[in-house]
Amino acid sequence: MVGGGPGAFIGAVHRIALNMDGDFDLVAGAFSSSPDKSAQTGEELSLDPVRIYGSWTEMAEVESALPEDQRIQAVSIVTPNHVHHGPAVEFLNRGFHVICDKPLTVNGELAREMLAVARASGRVFALTHNYTGYPMIREARELVRSGKIGKVLKVYAEYLQGWLVDPLEETGQKQADWRTDPARSGPGGALGDIGTHAFNLLEHVSGHKVSRIYADRRSFVPTRQVDDDTMAFIELENGATGTLCASQVCAGRENGLRLRIYGTEGGIEWDQEHPNDLHVCWKDKPSELRRTANGYLCEAAQSLGRTPAGHPEGYLEGFANIYRAFARALRGEPDLEDAYPTAADGLRGVQFIETVIESAEKKAWLEMPA
Amino acid sequence: MVGGGPGAFIGAVHRIALNMDGDFDLVAGAFSSSPDKSAQTGEELSLDPVRIYGSWTEMAEVESALPEDQRIQAVSIVTPNHVHHGPAVEFLNRGFHVICDKPLTVNGELAREMLAVARASGRVFALTHNYTGYPMIREARELVRSGKIGKVLKVYAEYLQGWLVDPLEETGQKQADWRTDPARSGPGGALGDIGTHAFNLLEHVSGHKVSRIYADRRSFVPTRQVDDDTMAFIELENGATGTLCASQVCAGRENGLRLRIYGTEGGIEWDQEHPNDLHVCWKDKPSELRRTANGYLCEAAQSLGRTPAGHPEGYLEGFANIYRAFARALRGEPDLEDAYPTAADGLRGVQFIETVIESAEKKAWLEMPA
Amino acid sequence: MVGGGPGAFIGAVHRIALNMDGDFDLVAGAFSSSPDKSAQTGEELSLDPVRIYGSWTEMAEVESALPEDQRIQAVSIVTPNHVHHGPAVEFLNRGFHVICDKPLTVNGELAREMLAVARASGRVFALTHNYTGYPMIREARELVRSGKIGKVLKVYAEYLQGWLVDPLEETGQKQADWRTDPARSGPGGALGDIGTHAFNLLEHVSGHKVSRIYADRRSFVPTRQVDDDTMAFIELENGATGTLCASQVCAGRENGLRLRIYGTEGGIEWDQEHPNDLHVCWKDKPSELRRTANGYLCEAAQSLGRTPAGHPEGYLEGFANIYRAFARALRGEPDLEDAYPTAADGLRGVQFIETVIESAEKKAWLEMPA
Amino acid sequence: MVGGGPGAFIGAVHRIALNMDGDFDLVAGAFSSSPDKSAQTGEELSLDPVRIYGSWTEMAEVESALPEDQRIQAVSIVTPNHVHHGPAVEFLNRGFHVICDKPLTVNGELAREMLAVARASGRVFALTHNYTGYPMIREARELVRSGKIGKVLKVYAEYLQGWLVDPLEETGQKQADWRTDPARSGPGGALGDIGTHAFNLLEHVSGHKVSRIYADRRSFVPTRQVDDDTMAFIELENGATGTLCASQVCAGRENGLRLRIYGTEGGIEWDQEHPNDLHVCWKDKPSELRRTANGYLCEAAQSLGRTPAGHPEGYLEGFANIYRAFARALRGEPDLEDAYPTAADGLRGVQFIETVIESAEKKAWLEMPA
Repeated sequence: MVGGGPGAFIGAVHRIALNMDGDFDLVAGAFSSSPDKSAQTGEELSLDPVRIYGSWTEMAEVESALPEDQRIQAVSIVTPNHVHHGPAVEFLNRGFHVICDKPLTVNGELAREMLAVARASGRVFALTHNYTGYPMIREARELVRSGKIGKVLKVYAEYLQGWLVDPLEETGQKQADWRTDPARSGPGGALGDIGTHAFNLLEHVSGHKVSRIYADRRSFVPTRQVDDDTMAFIELENGATGTLCASQVCAGRENGLRLRIYGTEGGIEWDQEHPNDLHVCWKDKPSELRRTANGYLCEAAQSLGRTPAGHPEGYLEGFANIYRAFARALRGEPDLEDAYPTAADGLRGVQFIETVIESAEKKAWLEMPA
Repeated sequence: MVGGGPGAFIGAVHRIALNMDGDFDLVAGAFSSSPDKSAQTGEELSLDPVRIYGSWTEMAEVESALPEDQRIQAVSIVTPNHVHHGPAVEFLNRGFHVICDKPLTVNGELAREMLAVARASGRVFALTHNYTGYPMIREARELVRSGKIGKVLKVYAEYLQGWLVDPLEETGQKQADWRTDPARSGPGGALGDIGTHAFNLLEHVSGHKVSRIYADRRSFVPTRQVDDDTMAFIELENGATGTLCASQVCAGRENGLRLRIYGTEGGIEWDQEHPNDLHVCWKDKPSELRRTANGYLCEAAQSLGRTPAGHPEGYLEGFANIYRAFARALRGEPDLEDAYPTAADGLRGVQFIETVIESAEKKAWLEMPA
Repeated sequence: MVGGGPGAFIGAVHRIALNMDGDFDLVAGAFSSSPDKSAQTGEELSLDPVRIYGSWTEMAEVESALPEDQRIQAVSIVTPNHVHHGPAVEFLNRGFHVICDKPLTVNGELAREMLAVARASGRVFALTHNYTGYPMIREARELVRSGKIGKVLKVYAEYLQGWLVDPLEETGQKQADWRTDPARSGPGGALGDIGTHAFNLLEHVSGHKVSRIYADRRSFVPTRQVDDDTMAFIELENGATGTLCASQVCAGRENGLRLRIYGTEGGIEWDQEHPNDLHVCWKDKPSELRRTANGYLCEAAQSLGRTPAGHPEGYLEGFANIYRAFARALRGEPDLEDAYPTAADGLRGVQFIETVIESAEKKAWLEMPA
Repeated sequence: MVGGGPGAFIGAVHRIALNMDGDFDLVAGAFSSSPDKSAQTGEELSLDPVRIYGSWTEMAEVESALPEDQRIQAVSIVTPNHVHHGPAVEFLNRGFHVICDKPLTVNGELAREMLAVARASGRVFALTHNYTGYPMIREARELVRSGKIGKVLKVYAEYLQGWLVDPLEETGQKQADWRTDPARSGPGGALGDIGTHAFNLLEHVSGHKVSRIYADRRSFVPTRQVDDDTMAFIELENGATGTLCASQVCAGRENGLRLRIYGTEGGIEWDQEHPNDLHVCWKDKPSELRRTANGYLCEAAQSLGRTPAGHPEGYLEGFANIYRAFARALRGEPDLEDAYPTAADGLRGVQFIETVIESAEKKAWLEMPA
């Protein structure tokens, strides 16, 4: 693992997710840019001291020098956004599989390079757009892509949080600190942190690419250096339209990622805060509540569950599903299309960020790359 | 009553609402532009045949010629949008009070004239933006306007229906027919029919006027002559931003009018399909569910209820509240500020329609009149 | 109207319900056992002073002496329970139709007499078990009775309120006062006031009579003279079992009437506080949400609505549906089976009260009359 | 691990839960009474073949003969109910810590023996009443025990499933097979399988012991040898009353464990299918929705979370919390009162089963042991 030192949120999440199914053991790490902090975290995790590294460059060098059956198999990158590109490229080039937090990186140029390196390396590269790991997202995807809800006309994606309504970064809070610093988070604030999740989910479920965007982007906290609110009109390649809103200043909202897609025959509605419920509405029939782990779900949705119907699956399980698919890819299993997000998905997310920023600046509808 | 003949939806609603509290008796009407249909409806309602009129002009003339204690006191106008202006002006000028369905009329010029006539007449003019009649909307309004949720930052209003996802107007269905005919509905389709409700509610609850708009407007049904989908970015006069979406092509959606407003301390969330529930979220406290008719509500919210807590109030009661306030105004009661929407609110709605249409055409942010 | 004077709750509800569809006009009343209070209410309702009576005996006498086309057609009895029998019998015997609040009366002997008088009179007698007037109750009834959910196995009915958790009757509050006085409410407290509603609804929807009961009945407020909490095990004639709980000491609960019935193929779940939602679960299919006014509902459910889908109907509309059915019966319309509760339903409710009380005393399972 | 072989449900759950936080590694097991099946599961889990045992007696013998730093530290017992007592006593007596699935065992005599052995051994014994591991259950417990909702008056606990509405055991389905065989499940069917969970949760949250019970117990599937439905009236030691219903024949219900407790000031309502939501209602204030991981929660509730607010925790996390507390106990941490259920809780569950069965047979209210 690269990153995930003291005070990190997403590093702890990755560790639980990789532990959950027994597919991985965490054996080495460069947990912080501070060697002391890295050592502290490594000790807390009871790692062998010789495999707790002071930097990811050291880790890459030493691990690749170990005999093949003793070195790490894969690396999990959970650093702030600006430290994704460096270790990803380094470890891929040295022959390690990589699983990396989102967004892929901080600009399109670096993203394209990462995609190229990943492809050239022949190694597995997975990006933790973890919300695609929920069983009911797979069910929604099947309902939409199979045409059961008809031709998609309208798409509403939103991701509303409230935790940055005050200038929390000025208190030194670690999560707020790097996320609002463009040098570390990249040019997008709420846009990159949560907007990319909404964007990824929307394309993942709808099966249609976003083709055009008109966006508005603001900082409601005056001293903030990145956006804390983004609104976008979107047009899909099939002609559907909709809105995508990402905000971190909706006081009282926890982690409100919601997706609604309506077609000519019906629609799907999903709320991450109750992720085992998928509401499906129909033009001429009663609406349905589909729930995780029932026999009536599509195979993809059923395959992601760990518990029987009525035993709620949560955020960590969704996350662990990405790790499980990554493990399957490492074992060379076939038919893993869309089982985990890839560098190409990551590039697309970075392009989304860049298009939104440009649209908001130019006040114009802009084309997304195809 | 003017309008409300065979097959009418909103006319029947008005009749129930005016009956509900015993404030009004329906004694005369010109229910249709067809004298036969008017007679048919009047008979069904057991009216005195001499007061069933073949046209609203005849009705205005005859009723105003009756002795003061025998003539109607007020007129309810429930015709399609293009027949609001004519009877409203006529009856106001003849000294009758008027309660009129929304939107006020089909363009800004006529709207301004109606406002001027209403003011000059000294008569009461009420517009049935009925959703302002729900008790929990008054509670939301109090929470927002009093500053309890802090400075308003974000506003999300939406009104999603699915009943026009197919070209229902081609089947001759009466409701679809006039609503999709610009000669009768005015230039806005979904925009005028339901978008104006969302707009009115947003300004009513937030206490801030919309100052700027950027809009997108489409017809997803190719043969349709008016929009069936509208999306708008909005900016309020206090700097808050948000979205307003009105669509009639979200298959499976019934009558999804929702309003969410977030400030620096918390937010309110309301869904017309469960109108007795007001969700209130707070920055540092558990979120609350406030419900109609409880003692903890503000006085304005309590005064609108007819039943004790837990006995749900619905759409018709909201509508009846507008009629009840109209009756109070007719009796000359004081302190009725905001108890019912007025011609000025109606003008504002028409300005909203016109600004959205112009913004969507010019692809530009436009100022709303102050 | 008999009853419904100053401070009455249910009298006001009846007046709105009878007004709602224009089927009835309120023209006469004995609103209180105090002539002064009766006069006060009559004046507030703008009745002709000569038809405001000081007692229901006077009203019965004077009205029946009027010419047939000038006298009242029907009487609405909204007095406390102990004053149902007297006026009901009197008015029926004088040839008037009667609509009466529940429970029918205070003991089985009086109930049987009322039923006999009602039958002998040839007049219409309706009992306002108003919750049977909700559209979704009719849909639930159809789903259960048609066998769609299979053989009924389990039934859970509950009616939980919190307003009597304190000895409110000691403050003189009118609603609490008579409801906790066995001389006026009859021997059941929560049992008669709300338990009978749950019982009526359960038999109405399930289509099966309760055959055996084992009950527990208490007063949690020590000074209270009637029960404020009742729990019963019930067995239906088809072998299904379940619980029926009625409590008025669940602090914070408003008007929590819920009914759940499960069969061998699926189940129905309904909550009066969101009465337009009917949840239907199935053994091997996604659960459904059926909502008022949609085209997929059974005819009985559709016929009770006044508004289109998504425009919520509430408590008053449910109540008004009983009045509307009563009006249809007065007009002699056929096929009104189960359209409104009758004196026979009322007798059954009184038998329920008596069986519960006896079971709780004897601590034994007891048979209900068939 | 003892048990958890091919086709086992709860064994897999225990393995994920013990993996989740890295507190435990699974290194040895007797996964089935069939040595072949045990070997198969052990191989699938990549265990060292010498530590895959053919029986738990062999495992106990061999493991206790290993040097202290090589032998297992604790054993997880996930066998059917009738094989809890044997291995638990054996491993405790040999000095191993034990974590065991519920119910503790199949009768009170064995339960008391297990409790005595556990106490005498000085080892940690934990029972996986996993629902006590949910953060919001801890919050509910704090609200009730601290007196915030006042004196407890009413308690409603229910656990409704539908998966046994048909005679699934006749198909050889493994879960149904042993659960409906009294030789393996003990005398309680639904009662022991799920009723004990509801009972445990009710006492855990309310802080009051059940003192008296009147029960009804049936098999709706005629060929079934154990109950598939249980209803009980309960009385708590403080005088509160309520119902406890456990059924496995409510077709369409998944895993409906719900707990509601009302006191003189308010109440709590929790539904396991949405475990991160705790509804709190108050006598004179808006009801609240308290959610996992927010700063306003009590310390006990906060300490159980792994993710920030809005990132749903699920069934596995609740389960893992029991394992985490067990690990803390193994490390000798103080102040673990109620952090995990113990053998004493297990004894109480068995006493509940026995009292219900006796009450249902005698048709009498019976005292629970204090």
